[in-house]
Amino acid sequence: MRAFKLILAYDGANFAGWQRQPDARTVQAVLEEALRPLAGDTVTVSGAGRTDAGVHAAGQVASVSFDSMRPVDELQRALNATLPSDVRVLAMDDGAEGFDARRDARSKTYRYAVWNGHSTPPHARRLVWHVLSRLDIDAMNEGARRLVGSHDFAAFQSTGSSVQTTMRELATSSWTEVDWRADPLGSIASPALAPDSRLLRYEVTGNGFLRHMVRTIVGTLVDVGRGRQSPEDVSRILASRDRATAGQTAPPHGLMLWRVDYADPD
Amino acid sequence: MRAFKLILAYDGANFAGWQRQPDARTVQAVLEEALRPLAGDTVTVSGAGRTDAGVHAAGQVASVSFDSMRPVDELQRALNATLPSDVRVLAMDDGAEGFDARRDARSKTYRYAVWNGHSTPPHARRLVWHVLSRLDIDAMNEGARRLVGSHDFAAFQSTGSSVQTTMRELATSSWTEVDWRADPLGSIASPALAPDSRLLRYEVTGNGFLRHMVRTIVGTLVDVGRGRQSPEDVSRILASRDRATAGQTAPPHGLMLWRVDYADPD
Repeated sequence: MRAFKLILAYDGANFAGWQRQPDARTVQAVLEEALRPLAGDTVTVSGAGRTDAGVHAAGQVASVSFDSMRPVDELQRALNATLPSDVRVLAMDDGAEGFDARRDARSKTYRYAVWNGHSTPPHARRLVWHVLSRLDIDAMNEGARRLVGSHDFAAFQSTGSSVQTTMRELATSSWTEVDWRADPLGSIASPALAPDSRLLRYEVTGNGFLRHMVRTIVGTLVDVGRGRQSPEDVSRILASRDRATAGQTAPPHGLMLWRVDYADPD
Repeated sequence: MRAFKLILAYDGANFAGWQRQPDARTVQAVLEEALRPLAGDTVTVSGAGRTDAGVHAAGQVASVSFDSMRPVDELQRALNATLPSDVRVLAMDDGAEGFDARRDARSKTYRYAVWNGHSTPPHARRLVWHVLSRLDIDAMNEGARRLVGSHDFAAFQSTGSSVQTTMRELATSSWTEVDWRADPLGSIASPALAPDSRLLRYEVTGNGFLRHMVRTIVGTLVDVGRGRQSPEDVSRILASRDRATAGQTAPPHGLMLWRVDYADPD
């Protein structure tokens, strides 16, 4: 069968997450539904990241296999014509035989956006976590750096998860202040916005992520930015392997699956 | 009484426009409701631009007068604590005695966003008009330039409007291609997006606008970009003073009231 690689973007607001579940609108279900007439049969899609309810994607990767003689760009257009407007296939290509977006992913990159200031611009409210108190970005970065490398991230997974191992490796973990004035749509870049408002972005790349891991890291690092925890506490929390020591789980709507990387085909 | 100047941003999607009307959720009504406890009485707000249903604002200006001893920044915070999250007071200041945001406005600037490419990124879908066929931006700009200056814009107002005069003066009228890769939230800047996708922005500044004027201009100029009309036709349409000669009214969700300017106080 022909294997396909799809790159997807979606607005997570009205999805109960990626993964198919009974009686819920999920990205996987919507996508499999749209693929059925093209495949001529029911298909199962594999997604690189199992994003939670409310979490967005700008570069989710999915794989699916079915027989078709049609060129990929024609299939992509047909899919986008059927899919609801809150999910789009940004790119579609033929994948290597047996390509599986989840199993073959080498690393995933997530971004988390925090609006640090008084009023959140109305159009940003679905994409940022609003934190009023002035955050110390240097302290947050000092804490974020302590997570880079191979660690047991048990303290940063939601309780009740069962996975074989809680060891994960992070290649990058850092905060940057992003210039909201650069917004090309102008929806968050009003000239009237208080100049001391800041848009902070956390970016993390890793070989895998536990359930709620990025959001728990963000909640903990925002506590560091508020001065409730010190950067050194991040190492202590990691070593404790105890979820109760970490900060709150940051809200889902600030999180976005940004990109997924695969090993070079050659 | 103390006069206040407010700068507002709102997401127009769930508003039936600016102006108060019975049994409809309007920005004016929501704002007057939130102001009542601060003013201790019902108040009437004047808005510089009477935006239509679905139209957004990043820099709407409103005025209101009432007696209060509280500092403006405290009033602003109290307002934002009460207002729904799709409308925000970005700035609040004391205005000159008798300041009226609508009457005193010297010029208004609107922006209109067109996504010109295959897939509209899901997070942009509420803020752009999606036009699939490749637009000729040079021709659109040639047409746009013909609208600068003092003209009778009767051909560009919705039929059934009654205003004293249809003469208006435009100071600027132009299209630019905006780099969507610069998006600080990343919501429309996925690395996977087809590189030939373009974000086009029309910006127009004028001393006043007729009903649906900007949207009818945009619909007409997009026809020019598609090659259905020539740039010279724009001058003919203007001279005809006949709405039937102009293009379609572009959809409201691509439009944003960007800023309002006032004469210098001295």
